[in-house]
Amino acid sequence: MSDPVSLPVPQPVAFRNIGLIGRPGKDAVNHTLDIIHQFLLAQGLNVLLDEETAHFADSSSLQVLSRRQMGETCDLVIVVGGDGSLLHAGRALARHHTPVLGVNRGRLGFLTDVSPQDVLEKLSAVLAGQYTLDRRFLLHVEIRRNNVPIYEEMALNDVVLHSGKAVHMIEFELEIDGHLVYHQHSDGLIIATPTGSTAYSLSGGGPIVFPGMDAIVLTPMHPHTLSSRPIVISGHSEIRIRIPHSVRVLPMVSPDGQSSISLEQDDVLLVRKHPFKLTLLHPPGYNFYAACRDKLGWNQEMIER
Amino acid sequence: MSDPVSLPVPQPVAFRNIGLIGRPGKDAVNHTLDIIHQFLLAQGLNVLLDEETAHFADSSSLQVLSRRQMGETCDLVIVVGGDGSLLHAGRALARHHTPVLGVNRGRLGFLTDVSPQDVLEKLSAVLAGQYTLDRRFLLHVEIRRNNVPIYEEMALNDVVLHSGKAVHMIEFELEIDGHLVYHQHSDGLIIATPTGSTAYSLSGGGPIVFPGMDAIVLTPMHPHTLSSRPIVISGHSEIRIRIPHSVRVLPMVSPDGQSSISLEQDDVLLVRKHPFKLTLLHPPGYNFYAACRDKLGWNQEMIER
Amino acid sequence: MSDPVSLPVPQPVAFRNIGLIGRPGKDAVNHTLDIIHQFLLAQGLNVLLDEETAHFADSSSLQVLSRRQMGETCDLVIVVGGDGSLLHAGRALARHHTPVLGVNRGRLGFLTDVSPQDVLEKLSAVLAGQYTLDRRFLLHVEIRRNNVPIYEEMALNDVVLHSGKAVHMIEFELEIDGHLVYHQHSDGLIIATPTGSTAYSLSGGGPIVFPGMDAIVLTPMHPHTLSSRPIVISGHSEIRIRIPHSVRVLPMVSPDGQSSISLEQDDVLLVRKHPFKLTLLHPPGYNFYAACRDKLGWNQEMIER
Amino acid sequence: MSDPVSLPVPQPVAFRNIGLIGRPGKDAVNHTLDIIHQFLLAQGLNVLLDEETAHFADSSSLQVLSRRQMGETCDLVIVVGGDGSLLHAGRALARHHTPVLGVNRGRLGFLTDVSPQDVLEKLSAVLAGQYTLDRRFLLHVEIRRNNVPIYEEMALNDVVLHSGKAVHMIEFELEIDGHLVYHQHSDGLIIATPTGSTAYSLSGGGPIVFPGMDAIVLTPMHPHTLSSRPIVISGHSEIRIRIPHSVRVLPMVSPDGQSSISLEQDDVLLVRKHPFKLTLLHPPGYNFYAACRDKLGWNQEMIER
Repeated sequence: MSDPVSLPVPQPVAFRNIGLIGRPGKDAVNHTLDIIHQFLLAQGLNVLLDEETAHFADSSSLQVLSRRQMGETCDLVIVVGGDGSLLHAGRALARHHTPVLGVNRGRLGFLTDVSPQDVLEKLSAVLAGQYTLDRRFLLHVEIRRNNVPIYEEMALNDVVLHSGKAVHMIEFELEIDGHLVYHQHSDGLIIATPTGSTAYSLSGGGPIVFPGMDAIVLTPMHPHTLSSRPIVISGHSEIRIRIPHSVRVLPMVSPDGQSSISLEQDDVLLVRKHPFKLTLLHPPGYNFYAACRDKLGWNQEMIER
Repeated sequence: MSDPVSLPVPQPVAFRNIGLIGRPGKDAVNHTLDIIHQFLLAQGLNVLLDEETAHFADSSSLQVLSRRQMGETCDLVIVVGGDGSLLHAGRALARHHTPVLGVNRGRLGFLTDVSPQDVLEKLSAVLAGQYTLDRRFLLHVEIRRNNVPIYEEMALNDVVLHSGKAVHMIEFELEIDGHLVYHQHSDGLIIATPTGSTAYSLSGGGPIVFPGMDAIVLTPMHPHTLSSRPIVISGHSEIRIRIPHSVRVLPMVSPDGQSSISLEQDDVLLVRKHPFKLTLLHPPGYNFYAACRDKLGWNQEMIER
Repeated sequence: MSDPVSLPVPQPVAFRNIGLIGRPGKDAVNHTLDIIHQFLLAQGLNVLLDEETAHFADSSSLQVLSRRQMGETCDLVIVVGGDGSLLHAGRALARHHTPVLGVNRGRLGFLTDVSPQDVLEKLSAVLAGQYTLDRRFLLHVEIRRNNVPIYEEMALNDVVLHSGKAVHMIEFELEIDGHLVYHQHSDGLIIATPTGSTAYSLSGGGPIVFPGMDAIVLTPMHPHTLSSRPIVISGHSEIRIRIPHSVRVLPMVSPDGQSSISLEQDDVLLVRKHPFKLTLLHPPGYNFYAACRDKLGWNQEMIER
Repeated sequence: MSDPVSLPVPQPVAFRNIGLIGRPGKDAVNHTLDIIHQFLLAQGLNVLLDEETAHFADSSSLQVLSRRQMGETCDLVIVVGGDGSLLHAGRALARHHTPVLGVNRGRLGFLTDVSPQDVLEKLSAVLAGQYTLDRRFLLHVEIRRNNVPIYEEMALNDVVLHSGKAVHMIEFELEIDGHLVYHQHSDGLIIATPTGSTAYSLSGGGPIVFPGMDAIVLTPMHPHTLSSRPIVISGHSEIRIRIPHSVRVLPMVSPDGQSSISLEQDDVLLVRKHPFKLTLLHPPGYNFYAACRDKLGWNQEMIER
């Protein structure tokens, strides 16, 4: 397991082409995009923006390309926004192993660990080779109908099996590595990576899994069996969910909260590790547990006795 | 608070017109319906069936009426089925204060506490005046748009505010008795009666509330604020949920798991005690905690140290 | 149910003799005690201090009496400290129905709802008759050995049955109102008032119970049966816990976190509502839900998707 | 990760010296010990008993040795009892890598997966080389006072930091791999192996961790910060707990529920993987998830909607 915190070794690669992604609109975001852009140009670097981001400035001198091209062209991509924005960009960039640096708009996030106030100082350090790389694995999700794959997608946080219509129980059979786990009635199941363990899975009672772990968490949603608990399995396990022939409510699948795909009776949902990885780049000072303390209010004593 | 367990006092009312409700189909249900029907006729009682139930027999001599008429006409209604069937019938009968006796098909339920094997013995006791009445309050739910009520319904178990599409967070503002409680981001909120506290709310981490309590439970569903917990408030409280003007995901409301109604921005959802009550009739031997032990597996020690 | 929030009716009683309790030592507490003391004297009121509190000043002109006498003599007692200090004072004052006002040292508490900065303004309002009274019920706990009461005590927050030595499972039988609930193996059981529902019980997964409710919460501690859940029962219920003859680990009982009493085999622990009530006095602006939002961090969104 | 289920490959080692451990007394246990003993002798094998076990028979022809010698001498040890008995024996045998087979007295356990009825059939298979080996890692726990180790022990299930006296909050600082995680107020912390994840940690809300995982679970006990959650970290992590200088309640440490050791101010508790491993031997048909379904009641649908 690599420890993203304890390895601040200077990295050999020089960053020449740097992508910049953000959703312009609010003054604060525009301002942050602008100072990053000016700073990088002043360093003599090549700055590339995707089409949406380019709206932050009226200049015609910007270099604009598609998010897909950005993965091919850039040595580093900077995302300005929340964890959700980084997630979205990360899915497009994982194919090309492009490192991603997240700059938050306001409060820090789990993935976007640079604050706007510190951004130039942190960027200077990164360009001087002071950073750590933190590789996060993704999930590959596949739907098989009559044994034929009809859908596949990747997920960085989680794959969620759910009813499509809330307040409808679903029913499914879970197998891990060929062994039956249970036949469950519930609102659904969250299959999360360590990265996703601090997102939706956490609100369903799932554990926090340290980012570097080779592990997958299965968190049941409102299970009818009160003794059903979150399960942590190997990152190499194959998860197989079968929709029984007899179900009345057809479940749906949603990777990373994206639009849902409908399953049918006898469909099989396969989830396993994806060959791609997302490469996060952290400036010096990154610490997963500090992010937990800050985001989850761990410094706050809520109960007195 | 009335204790449904400790008051097995003989009741004055004689039952003359007895309704019988069940979903015929499986042999076991048909058989149970048949022996109840024969038994009641043999006692010289008037037995009335709703249209669906009447299919259990081929006889043309059955007395059939609508479920609505059943409430007006019957002194007692017997429901053969699960808790869900009793819930459904109970909503139609509450208006007329008709007592309802639940006969389960297999395992006992929280509401259907007579097993098919015991049904004739228990019915004899009931007809001899040995039973307890157990009044359960209902919730009244109302949607107001531009201050005008556009929808109202009753619920015996719960009123659920949810996203309509699972895996979408909703956002709402909760007020109780005129006081702001919180502005919440979550999958939704379960507002449950004591009767409903052993149903959906329980799977969301809500407490078990003793049936006779004058209390309402509010159980958040997958809240983003990890310190959000179930809240128990007075049965006389008025719950007011406001949908902010700014929301992108429009939430829905579902009483007792029925079909959902869509809310719009600025809509107000009002939930308070309904004037009607459901009257459950229990034969001698009913015990809420015994039902918990049986249904929830409380006799099972799951962990060894 | 009385709503402590919605009844800011002026109260007839004039406060003449006012008690002041606090644990002097830190400059901030001394300072708060001093300004309250000076303010009350300046209003021509009689200020009485208990022996410990009197150390905050070097003056010999202070009126000092025992905490027990304070309950008999005072029309109002002001406690400077945390929820724990108010709890401690409240147990001594409940006998005399003396209203208690809590001034917190730093962060607000659930019981101590006046901040040091606001204390003179709030006290002025209170002395002018602007306040609400909020009566909180207490629990009475009794141990019976061979059917003879050998111990009794009161509790404002909770009565906790536990192993005495942590990491030892205990075993007991719970009856409510004469009905067996379960035979449980666990680390123990927390029996909490609504006031105590936001203290230890909350950390064990118990619900928040609105202060005015006539309800008791039973929260199992690390139960071996995973489907064991918190139960909310009537404030009029009698809780009876029997220690089986066969147990090897003898459990202990602790009211409000006070020193624990050992139970023996076949002992019976009885918990029911105490005839005394604690009377909290709130200046204008008190709001239970605001205290929850503040103490429990409900304004903090911890999860992003 | 080795999958104990999917590797029923015949093993080369022949078992000649077989240890037998059990707590004689009840007829059922004596009977099981007896038939195993007779069966093994009939196969021409050498059977060795520890002193306690030898009481099951009156014969003077038994070969008796200490539990410590058993580890040195035996090729296989069979434990008749519950998971607790196997845990106890396992701690003594881990040093010698001796495989252990658990025969349960009644209900199956997580570790003792052979039922008395099947024992001869399963033993025949094992002696014929049909079995899987399932290596479980242990924790090493060490207390350092003034930087000097004053205590060390091993644990197969968990190391629990607790108050010694229940209902007393403790306070400690947790570091993982040199990084501060939090300063916590709680009843304590459970540090569990995957094996221990289905024991005490599970009752505290910890996840189930698949046995083969190289992971450690940290489950807080009744934390004062409501957003504190179980954390899953690498099996190679070093856990360091520091007792602040200022604490009033001195915590204690208990490995595998054994007798507790008191900590003092400024003591440091170190927990990391132990070099020894426990080797479980499973006859054909072992399945971790089947054990979960059986022990945890996963086949039971507890909630109806």
